[in-house]
Amino acid sequence: MRQFVIIGHDAPTTAAFSLDDLAGGAGRLDVLCRCVSAAFFLSHDIREDVRVHLVLGGEYTITFDGRTVRRLNPDERSTAALVRNALEEREAAIGHVPVETSPGVSLTRRGFASTLDDAGADGTVVQLHENGDPVVDTEPPDDPVFVLSDHRSFTAEESETLGGHTDRRVSLGPKPLHANHAITVAHNFLDTDGFQSH
Amino acid sequence: MRQFVIIGHDAPTTAAFSLDDLAGGAGRLDVLCRCVSAAFFLSHDIREDVRVHLVLGGEYTITFDGRTVRRLNPDERSTAALVRNALEEREAAIGHVPVETSPGVSLTRRGFASTLDDAGADGTVVQLHENGDPVVDTEPPDDPVFVLSDHRSFTAEESETLGGHTDRRVSLGPKPLHANHAITVAHNFLDTDGFQSH
Repeated sequence: MRQFVIIGHDAPTTAAFSLDDLAGGAGRLDVLCRCVSAAFFLSHDIREDVRVHLVLGGEYTITFDGRTVRRLNPDERSTAALVRNALEEREAAIGHVPVETSPGVSLTRRGFASTLDDAGADGTVVQLHENGDPVVDTEPPDDPVFVLSDHRSFTAEESETLGGHTDRRVSLGPKPLHANHAITVAHNFLDTDGFQSH
Repeated sequence: MRQFVIIGHDAPTTAAFSLDDLAGGAGRLDVLCRCVSAAFFLSHDIREDVRVHLVLGGEYTITFDGRTVRRLNPDERSTAALVRNALEEREAAIGHVPVETSPGVSLTRRGFASTLDDAGADGTVVQLHENGDPVVDTEPPDDPVFVLSDHRSFTAEESETLGGHTDRRVSLGPKPLHANHAITVAHNFLDTDGFQSH
């Protein structure tokens, strides 16, 4: 399985945001929605063997599971509606027990460290870093868990948490990419492993 | 320069569409907006040496120029607002003379064939095709012009036009990608040419 953990630093933790202002009042939720889309969509298909964890404001994590997710569309607005729908159930998310808020989408009351503990338990945690090993020189990891940040850098505390879990540091190329573009490139790298000619 | 020509089959040709319904009433303009974002954005930077041509309903073409574009943001809604703003000037687009509708964004009354004639005049037209040469086996082209379609396939007529202009057929990998994801992968391929280690 391929997993993606994405931290939304300014992302909403309540459902009180407008779908008309994702890049403004909703704390750049547009970035996270594009990450979800990049993680799951193929042309006319969904990648089933993928899980995405959006860590919202360090308080809640919303998990999308490709095997069971429904009503997912590639546009930002409809994905944001699934997030808002999930946050409407926030009172039901008690402790670390996930609440399924729509098919294949669940909400858990927990932050980055706990989410990474779980996601990384059975996988290889890959930190995307400009000084990491060039991806073209690396062997594709088993069950990778890619950790990304939204439009902001990781905080010192997040970097420390991530450092404690990281199995590998990998660079996707010489140009710094948006998180959603990094997801697309990571998928392509894994897809094309051994892909030379027909 | 890297250019991307993207055909929007159901895309609006007038400004009479809602920014709240890009994936519905606006004929999947969300797809084209994601393509623009994928073509131009780096983390905290814009790719200046890029030009994007959105062919709308075979009638109008909107061109974004990375050297001069302003007010461009990565979210779908704000890009769609630039498109709507451009289409508000459609009466001023006469013949093949482009009208600048906001800094770095221009509208021309012309369809796919004429747009491709111009874009391909000084570049290498690359058709992305599942049976093309694997990108990892190819030499990066000079001044590539990538031609893509939205959520629909090329029509027979478009395929014939494209066939007449195509210099190379390239496959980006074994999985069929959305147009915006293909743009991201194409950029990464060109960025990382020769990128092996630090």
